Amino acid sequence: MSDETKQAVFDRVEKFRSRRRRFDDEVVTMAHGAGGKSSEALLDGVFLEAFDGTMLQERDDGGVVSTGADVLVMSTDSFVITPWRFAGGSIGSLAVHGTVNDVAVMGAVPRWITVAFVIEEGFLVADLREIVDDMAEAAKAAGVTIVSGDTKVVERGAADGIYITTTGVGMRDQSLVLGAEHVQVGDQVLVSGSIGDHGMSIMLARGGLSFDADIVSDSAALHGLVAEVLGAAPGTRWFRDPTRGGVASALNELVTSNGLTVELDEAALPVSPPVAGACEILGLDPLYVANEGKAIAVVAPECAAAALDAMRSHPLGREAAVIGEVVDEPPGLVVLRTPFGGTRIVDLLVGDPLPRIC
Amino acid sequence: MSDETKQAVFDRVEKFRSRRRRFDDEVVTMAHGAGGKSSEALLDGVFLEAFDGTMLQERDDGGVVSTGADVLVMSTDSFVITPWRFAGGSIGSLAVHGTVNDVAVMGAVPRWITVAFVIEEGFLVADLREIVDDMAEAAKAAGVTIVSGDTKVVERGAADGIYITTTGVGMRDQSLVLGAEHVQVGDQVLVSGSIGDHGMSIMLARGGLSFDADIVSDSAALHGLVAEVLGAAPGTRWFRDPTRGGVASALNELVTSNGLTVELDEAALPVSPPVAGACEILGLDPLYVANEGKAIAVVAPECAAAALDAMRSHPLGREAAVIGEVVDEPPGLVVLRTPFGGTRIVDLLVGDPLPRIC
Repeated sequence: MSDETKQAVFDRVEKFRSRRRRFDDEVVTMAHGAGGKSSEALLDGVFLEAFDGTMLQERDDGGVVSTGADVLVMSTDSFVITPWRFAGGSIGSLAVHGTVNDVAVMGAVPRWITVAFVIEEGFLVADLREIVDDMAEAAKAAGVTIVSGDTKVVERGAADGIYITTTGVGMRDQSLVLGAEHVQVGDQVLVSGSIGDHGMSIMLARGGLSFDADIVSDSAALHGLVAEVLGAAPGTRWFRDPTRGGVASALNELVTSNGLTVELDEAALPVSPPVAGACEILGLDPLYVANEGKAIAVVAPECAAAALDAMRSHPLGREAAVIGEVVDEPPGLVVLRTPFGGTRIVDLLVGDPLPRIC
Repeated sequence: MSDETKQAVFDRVEKFRSRRRRFDDEVVTMAHGAGGKSSEALLDGVFLEAFDGTMLQERDDGGVVSTGADVLVMSTDSFVITPWRFAGGSIGSLAVHGTVNDVAVMGAVPRWITVAFVIEEGFLVADLREIVDDMAEAAKAAGVTIVSGDTKVVERGAADGIYITTTGVGMRDQSLVLGAEHVQVGDQVLVSGSIGDHGMSIMLARGGLSFDADIVSDSAALHGLVAEVLGAAPGTRWFRDPTRGGVASALNELVTSNGLTVELDEAALPVSPPVAGACEILGLDPLYVANEGKAIAVVAPECAAAALDAMRSHPLGREAAVIGEVVDEPPGLVVLRTPFGGTRIVDLLVGDPLPRIC
């Protein structure tokens, strides 16, 4: 890194630090839950300030702890998706897949999961059974055991149907080296398949759109695919599942924590025609639309072909592609190279175009 | 156990099994969240039926898993208490204490915790800061590290302020023997202090009562007290923190899983005068009112004095008392011996006299 670049990274870090001090929103808004700039400001300005957060500072989706003999990865997520049933899954399967994936992309084998329900009075037991059956099936398929749970019921109007919080614990190989700090210039960026499927399927499930399209959520457990890639490509540096906020937000988290740059190749981004069409009609960029069964991997250049092969050999990664490369400037940014040779900055969003997507 | 008693236990177990098949409620009601009979029916009839639940069948508040080298205890709880601020704490401190306690009473040292927020749009950031500060302070005091988290925001009206789900993981000594199946006839039942304080403090915080009383929630982390008791009384068989549903519900869970009987001595139950008075006015039985900083221990008779001493030496256990004994009939029941020499059955409640108490 040149001195100039180092200064730019330093400036950016300082900007984040000062923003933390400056967080002065008075009420929580939907944008704070969207996974973009406002979410980051809330995380910085409220949570990290209070919690003794060296581990939280890493901005990973899970925590890594050592018990002495073992390395444990622990991750939690609340699911508030509406509607609770959609093409390709339900809040039940999603709550299992989401947490299994957060543990898996930290390089661990997901093993145990807890489930906590907040249910609105009057919720149909038949619907609850359907959700719980979906959870059981998803847990079985992912090889995780549901070890403990909790149920709270709140009065009619005090919740919107059902909210589920799952927490997963997995075991990670002590020798595994994975994290934003290991990413280097020249590393290749891979995605395991088409992007934006989950978010657009939810938009369609909500109805009220003037068009119909055949879009199914990609909600799936990625532990198998991740394990295949880690096995085939020891030079894998960083893994993430690009959920809320999409590929754009996940990669912004990466460059925020290591000060490098990700240059994406727009022509290489796998987007299915129905998703591309629906996004165009709605004025959405698929880069920001949530996925629930896709992984992004950043891999050393000499391992990229092996990682791509490993993804494509897995049923969930047939459409995997190399979508970009790590470069060193402009530092701390994600940029997109368009087919016409231009580049534009892919920044974090401020608002929330798709609330309650997970 | 006599053959007759065995038959009675068998009959009771059969009753539970058939109830599971018979669960035919069509909607979720507040009673399903109350920790009483309806909660148990929901657990039996919906969750245990779907989840491959040998571990869930134990009806403990946490799961115990072995990683090979270590024994991990994992527990989760959602907190939906209203109001979020009350005498003696807030939803923030409560969410840490509640999960720390669930892990501690399983005999483990709580170590790591995750936090997941569901926040209603419009919630005041100043209030959120207060809650988060309470969590940070409670976690620090309890020696647990917050390793990961999540925030979801839902539209105005889709939640009632803020809901927090915490999940804790702790390490347990491999040689520790603790569980309902180890409880024997003759064992003594201890409680670490006055009962009903938390529930009644919430009733008062809600206002609308025609009287005022000086009642402070007992919300506190019990890991230290539990460790002292386990160290002093190796014959400790079972531990539980009697939260939602109170001492009555916790002990009913015990006898449901082992088919024995707990005989409580009404005169020995520690109840503070303000709680006793408020309960009398409201027609509530303190045995069913929630605690958030009390432990029940079932201890071999030869260890009872040591366990009581250990509790009383701890700042949170000064009013500890022996409140009952394990006997063998009527099987599967909790009974209360009144000061007048009579006995009455302390059954699980069906409804919820105090909703959203935690």
